[in-house]
Amino acid sequence: MDYGMWNDRTNMSMLTDFYELTMANGYLDNGCGDKIVYFDMFFRNIPENGGYAVMCGVEQVIDYLSNLTFTEEDLTFLKDNYHFNDKFIDYLRNFEFKCDVWAIPEGTVVFPGEPLIKVRGPISQAQLMETALLCTINHQTLIATKTARIVRAAEGRPVMEFGARRAQGFDASVLGARAAYIAGAAGTSCTICGQQFNIPLSGTMAHSWVMLFDSEFEAFKAYSKSYPKGALLLVDTYDVLRSGIPNAIRCAKEVLEPMGERLKGIRIDSGDLTYLTQQARKMLDEAGLTDCKITVSNALDEYLIRDLISQGACIDSFGVGERLITSKAEPVFGGVYKISAVEDENGNIIPKMKISDSRAKITNPCSKEIIRFYDKSTGKALADVVTVAGEKVPDGEPYEIFDPNDTWKAKTLTNYETRKLLVKIFDGGKLVYDKPSIEEVRAYCTKEIDSLWDSVKRFENPHNYYVDLSPELWKIKDEILRSYRQK
Amino acid sequence: MDYGMWNDRTNMSMLTDFYELTMANGYLDNGCGDKIVYFDMFFRNIPENGGYAVMCGVEQVIDYLSNLTFTEEDLTFLKDNYHFNDKFIDYLRNFEFKCDVWAIPEGTVVFPGEPLIKVRGPISQAQLMETALLCTINHQTLIATKTARIVRAAEGRPVMEFGARRAQGFDASVLGARAAYIAGAAGTSCTICGQQFNIPLSGTMAHSWVMLFDSEFEAFKAYSKSYPKGALLLVDTYDVLRSGIPNAIRCAKEVLEPMGERLKGIRIDSGDLTYLTQQARKMLDEAGLTDCKITVSNALDEYLIRDLISQGACIDSFGVGERLITSKAEPVFGGVYKISAVEDENGNIIPKMKISDSRAKITNPCSKEIIRFYDKSTGKALADVVTVAGEKVPDGEPYEIFDPNDTWKAKTLTNYETRKLLVKIFDGGKLVYDKPSIEEVRAYCTKEIDSLWDSVKRFENPHNYYVDLSPELWKIKDEILRSYRQK
Repeated sequence: MDYGMWNDRTNMSMLTDFYELTMANGYLDNGCGDKIVYFDMFFRNIPENGGYAVMCGVEQVIDYLSNLTFTEEDLTFLKDNYHFNDKFIDYLRNFEFKCDVWAIPEGTVVFPGEPLIKVRGPISQAQLMETALLCTINHQTLIATKTARIVRAAEGRPVMEFGARRAQGFDASVLGARAAYIAGAAGTSCTICGQQFNIPLSGTMAHSWVMLFDSEFEAFKAYSKSYPKGALLLVDTYDVLRSGIPNAIRCAKEVLEPMGERLKGIRIDSGDLTYLTQQARKMLDEAGLTDCKITVSNALDEYLIRDLISQGACIDSFGVGERLITSKAEPVFGGVYKISAVEDENGNIIPKMKISDSRAKITNPCSKEIIRFYDKSTGKALADVVTVAGEKVPDGEPYEIFDPNDTWKAKTLTNYETRKLLVKIFDGGKLVYDKPSIEEVRAYCTKEIDSLWDSVKRFENPHNYYVDLSPELWKIKDEILRSYRQK
Repeated sequence: MDYGMWNDRTNMSMLTDFYELTMANGYLDNGCGDKIVYFDMFFRNIPENGGYAVMCGVEQVIDYLSNLTFTEEDLTFLKDNYHFNDKFIDYLRNFEFKCDVWAIPEGTVVFPGEPLIKVRGPISQAQLMETALLCTINHQTLIATKTARIVRAAEGRPVMEFGARRAQGFDASVLGARAAYIAGAAGTSCTICGQQFNIPLSGTMAHSWVMLFDSEFEAFKAYSKSYPKGALLLVDTYDVLRSGIPNAIRCAKEVLEPMGERLKGIRIDSGDLTYLTQQARKMLDEAGLTDCKITVSNALDEYLIRDLISQGACIDSFGVGERLITSKAEPVFGGVYKISAVEDENGNIIPKMKISDSRAKITNPCSKEIIRFYDKSTGKALADVVTVAGEKVPDGEPYEIFDPNDTWKAKTLTNYETRKLLVKIFDGGKLVYDKPSIEEVRAYCTKEIDSLWDSVKRFENPHNYYVDLSPELWKIKDEILRSYRQK
């Protein structure tokens, strides 16, 4: 097996931080490897101080968990190099995934402090999956969240994902493009992603095409003859307004129209995109090419797109690369995976929490659920409440939500409907979830974003969506904190 | 084939921007698919305004190019969904890689404007490899460059790469850890990376370990019994100075010393790391644990590490996560891949260049080489000169270098030795390069960084290392620019 060759990649069980293995071994060694525990994956901050994040990556977590096994090669490596004992090696050899796993479905809008994924199972197993789970959800949720911002800025104009060459590796390119499509991108340039996930592909020519021919016109002519229906000519290799657009117009007139075809579009990849697209539009329109679309690319993000549109740039679609595929302005989604409870011998759930002087680092104890409240008249999301699992779900009665930090900030909800966000995906290690198609996830994501008030979707200073604790959960947390401080 | 399952990943030929395929087809369609061309991969800016970058990723480019073939499944996808004609499908079916490829070896310090990779071959092939090549080199060079900064800040203290959970996907985690090791990290937490690339692994416990047990002391005791020689106790789950360190000391005295072992170390993952490590050091020393090492982690990068050290923090090693594995401050390495020449029917090399109003976007024409000049007395690198391939290499005679933009900035080199940076890795599609071991690359990288003057290695405002054009190359470029402007 050679990672560099990307073969035998079905099984990523060894994609785990080494301490997950030393701890798993330690748990077994101390006779508590089968202790049943609960873990939550959650995050504390929305990238770029945004108002919401878009959950993504569940399908790849399912793939990973469905293939959790250790090969003899893996075992030999661990034994020979790191001296794990035979008991642990045998444990890994006979590894059989037994956890219960709940997840918020992909495409859902999510907020800090909510368990995006909840795991219940033997500590040795629940511990082991931490790294791959965080890596997968952190990455795809980051890209989906960023893309949702960019798509919103484009105000209905298609946004194509063009970032493969600047992605942080092949997975980042392919799964990043997947996340982008779920969050509203119209398609991708990444061929393997189109193939694997059934996502529309696009892409026509690079500067090298134009430079290979003796002149820009010859290059446009050759391309248009090969692709009369799909020619989207890149007009900025030499000079957009003095060479690119005139040659594109000539190509439309002398090459395409005699074939009975129209010039589909042009792309501009450099320069002042407001000025150039306005001039280009004028030149194209004057030549009767009012149906010729203008696409732009070059270091775009939601801020630049918003500015271009507000300045009156004449743009029909956007190609967005590095700033989307790496979430360049904030390339880390800080999801963490923390223990929240353990079960005693009688199956009682004992809450656990990490104490810290920093309020942000204190975790929420208990096996939990999340209830989302929707306004019955508008359908808009009002608030989320994190509850202790098994608590009665409010059913129309007036329900008071309150800020878990500033408990005097309270609000009573009426005329609402509720929905539980967490869905069970594994039951005792068996997959019990039907993965939706990518088109279903994408359509659901659009509806999810529509369920938020515009104030939550602002790029700067969005309204803070309420994620509160139920009175029961708050009380348990408060008691643990107080009893710790008394010690 | 299901990408989500990471299987059948040997062959990443479909990891290509769709326009590489439409162009390749277009070239064939226009009868110029076999035209011999030259492409350069190069970059324009060093991330974070640094003084140098560290070349990385060549091994994965070799793996990719060694497996460039299209499966029937790929062909069916392209034909059925995107209507490529049978001629092109047959071309891909019989694809046989025939290019010459040169690369600067991994671990070399590199600078803007230099071809990091040079390709010569049929345009249809040279075009197709653009996306995967850029993705691979951009990603790994980014992480190697960032790591070199962090390792330098640590002033000899080991830096462990701990970022898998925040990496942008599995490849980013594994190949990022590989790049980090090459650039001087002491090891990684990423188990599969250790396994695949023979890189030292480390990692002991998370907060969940401490929280599972009834008390912090019980947790430390259990771990120390399982790992008497390797216990590195995480002391910040509750309170570092009032609980963590006292419990660690008690564990050293009551658990480890009776077994004849010493406490190996402690780790602090939150709080004021200067104050806490100073106090921790004092408490450990007073307890006679002067050999107990202190490791810190938590949002570290080169700036924070430099500050901690300058403030007198008592730190023996660093665990660095998200800011390394994503190069958070600048997560994109902007390498590009541009055509530089074409061969006519007689094998004459005709230079090509992209013209642009923006000086930074004008490319350098010709098939090129890079000569690095070293000072004979100090061994330090003096300057790089990009030449036309085949130009005579200076051999000790006084050699004038000049800035290609500000040609009046000139300097005469004497008492120098030279080295060519580009090494041939494929000849007519055949691999002709012996990949060095990762330890060789890592040792070479250390020597490479040592060959730079300290002034080039400053984090802020480093000295600008000279990368000049040879008089012959400058003349060709100048003539093309002038003749274009005359048109």
